Amino acid sequence: MTPYEVISHKRDGKNLTPEEIRYFISAFMNGEITDYQMTALLMAIYLRGMDYRETSALTNAYIQSGVCIDLTDIPGIKVDKHSTGGVGDKVSLILAPLVACLGVPVPMVSGRGLGHSGGTLDKLESIPGFKTNLSIDKFRELLREYGLGLIGQTRELVPADKRIYALRDVTATVDCIPLIAASIMSKKIAEGIDALVLDVKFGNGAFMKNPEDAERLANTLIQIGGDFGKKIVASLTSMEQPLGNYIGNWLEVLESLACLNGEGPEDLLEVTLNLAGHMLILGGAAKDMSDAKRQCMAALKDGRAMEKFMQIAHAQGADVSFLEHPEKYLQAKETQELKSDKTGFISHMDTYEIGMASVNLGAGRLRAEDSVDPRAGIVLNKKIGDKVAAGDVLLTIHTNKPERVKTVLQQLRQAIKIVETAPAAPPLILKELNTL
Amino acid sequence: MTPYEVISHKRDGKNLTPEEIRYFISAFMNGEITDYQMTALLMAIYLRGMDYRETSALTNAYIQSGVCIDLTDIPGIKVDKHSTGGVGDKVSLILAPLVACLGVPVPMVSGRGLGHSGGTLDKLESIPGFKTNLSIDKFRELLREYGLGLIGQTRELVPADKRIYALRDVTATVDCIPLIAASIMSKKIAEGIDALVLDVKFGNGAFMKNPEDAERLANTLIQIGGDFGKKIVASLTSMEQPLGNYIGNWLEVLESLACLNGEGPEDLLEVTLNLAGHMLILGGAAKDMSDAKRQCMAALKDGRAMEKFMQIAHAQGADVSFLEHPEKYLQAKETQELKSDKTGFISHMDTYEIGMASVNLGAGRLRAEDSVDPRAGIVLNKKIGDKVAAGDVLLTIHTNKPERVKTVLQQLRQAIKIVETAPAAPPLILKELNTL
Repeated sequence: MTPYEVISHKRDGKNLTPEEIRYFISAFMNGEITDYQMTALLMAIYLRGMDYRETSALTNAYIQSGVCIDLTDIPGIKVDKHSTGGVGDKVSLILAPLVACLGVPVPMVSGRGLGHSGGTLDKLESIPGFKTNLSIDKFRELLREYGLGLIGQTRELVPADKRIYALRDVTATVDCIPLIAASIMSKKIAEGIDALVLDVKFGNGAFMKNPEDAERLANTLIQIGGDFGKKIVASLTSMEQPLGNYIGNWLEVLESLACLNGEGPEDLLEVTLNLAGHMLILGGAAKDMSDAKRQCMAALKDGRAMEKFMQIAHAQGADVSFLEHPEKYLQAKETQELKSDKTGFISHMDTYEIGMASVNLGAGRLRAEDSVDPRAGIVLNKKIGDKVAAGDVLLTIHTNKPERVKTVLQQLRQAIKIVETAPAAPPLILKELNTL
Repeated sequence: MTPYEVISHKRDGKNLTPEEIRYFISAFMNGEITDYQMTALLMAIYLRGMDYRETSALTNAYIQSGVCIDLTDIPGIKVDKHSTGGVGDKVSLILAPLVACLGVPVPMVSGRGLGHSGGTLDKLESIPGFKTNLSIDKFRELLREYGLGLIGQTRELVPADKRIYALRDVTATVDCIPLIAASIMSKKIAEGIDALVLDVKFGNGAFMKNPEDAERLANTLIQIGGDFGKKIVASLTSMEQPLGNYIGNWLEVLESLACLNGEGPEDLLEVTLNLAGHMLILGGAAKDMSDAKRQCMAALKDGRAMEKFMQIAHAQGADVSFLEHPEKYLQAKETQELKSDKTGFISHMDTYEIGMASVNLGAGRLRAEDSVDPRAGIVLNKKIGDKVAAGDVLLTIHTNKPERVKTVLQQLRQAIKIVETAPAAPPLILKELNTL
């Protein structure tokens, strides 16, 4: 078998065999296949596609490139959640302690923000002292002690994905379902879970622009999970506007704390309870969705979820006084309001542009090596369907880059469309799919 | 403009602008764009195609990566010939001195053999002392003195093609019309020609397997030539069997000498006279094809073509005594005949396999860095349409690798099909296309 043969087979639209896929990935990892041969294959996969068997074999080859965490000695059904990413999506911060405090262990390996979308690690690290680059041993210790661990991808987990993702990022081969699916599922399977809840986003702020593509991705993820003996539930949820009202790392921590206090905005709570509910059912801690939601509401109201969050934050090195007294946290130097120049109803939000505006304020990164400003971001006062009068505050920006304020406010004004008549409310949770 | 944008435009099937193409190639050459971004673009071009405007812009970007040879101070219309390559194609060795001796300057920059197909440089260098890696200054000097120069691609000519070809070769992106066209035409235009005759091969021994693809390539080449103000004539000629009877570097020199003596096999002579005829017409030395062929036959018969070949060989360092007395040349250690095991007519020759058999005997190379054995090769006694009796010699192999004899004879036996009834003669020159 040669790299040339494998590339030419995919180029010509043939299905690759599991042997071809295993060979290509392992020869790439040991240096026999070059980066430029890998990117030729990635582009051929992008344009020719891969069926679910090929994607499953690719997932397996990714997993084999590193170690798998063995969590079998930790009691309980281990359940994680993965979101395909969006703007204002701080669900993990609320759901992880919530599910863990109700008895289901949550081994959560998260990523960083890139481009318009945020990442859980950046949000957690905005809490002073919070460490996410922990060893696998420490991760296992946290899970045993607290039923919860919140870490980043380690060197040992799926190194093939790390190298290949970096190539995809600069060769326009990111938004490709089989490549996305193998990247997601390899990392989740390697982290030692028994079951997984997927939040597959669709809309103008998601990687999948329409529900059909999101459903195609969800089905691929579910099928692959099944191949590896994992139970999977997927929700298709809307990213036609940011989730909740706060965008930016520390700002999203603040909104998560509100949610953990049983307050938070309705859309954020709805998505969180739904995903947490699936996790509790998969974890055997709830008999159905209404039981699960009832338990969740109780744990939010009586402080158990907040207590679990404080525990894990403290265990991972955070100075929890900032969580108890958020007013201690230094604000961004510059805050400015954007006021409506029209009267009417918000009908549309360009969520990608809002995410990029947040990046421009300092909250995100354009390249993996950029640093992020924990204080930067956007607080929305209005969302789709809200009535606004000319002069009403639409949102407030927070930044330490005053020179960018003017441009970003313009960018945000163009991202929000106001019309005369009230629009229909867009669906938030569109559909649910599972292997059960 | 970013590399990502350019790659994604082609990935999505858009036409690239001349600015995008120029930027991508020049940024690649100055190191801003990596090899792995180039191969992603090459695979996208392979699968999405390029129209003739894009191909023309790519050709121009290739040319701009190096220097162009200025031959304006050399009198006459400079005409070259380019073949897309095949097995036994030694036409250049005969045609170049033939056309030059009839008054049309021939600035010929040739390539080496790779895979199943041979290369003019390897054939010339099988003549002891013959040097092809000459400077541009020396090339101009030869042209001024002899009206002929036979060199290889120098560092200064189209360096982008050299780097990109090496990447195409290992990423399964070689057989792609726009990439082939830009590669051919950039080198020909940079060598300073006024007009060009193309021998576009089709058939099982050519890169283009069928006449339709060959015609598509020919039309692209002609259109691009037109963009650069060059007159182009293209012949579509058959590579359904080797051209002539001798395959292998020195063996092809021997057959070329026979042709220059007015002897050589009919098919080789027919293709050579046709291409030489077009060159003479383009160069203003003949008024039509019958005039051109008459002049050619005279120059072969009276020794002028041979004399020109001896002159240029001597000028380029060759020991011409080997051309005058080929019996001096050391033969390959091992020669073996392949005899027919059937009686009937040869109906089919797998020319690709015959070329690869010749490579296996030592005459060619699988990788650009391999060396070739000038003495190795195959002499065919029979061609398509010939009657054979069981026991007749079909061919003789020449090699210095006796351990390969058995396998290669098997390979060759399978490559030659013998049937009971005489097949129809396949067309040799199928079609001619031009811009005139």
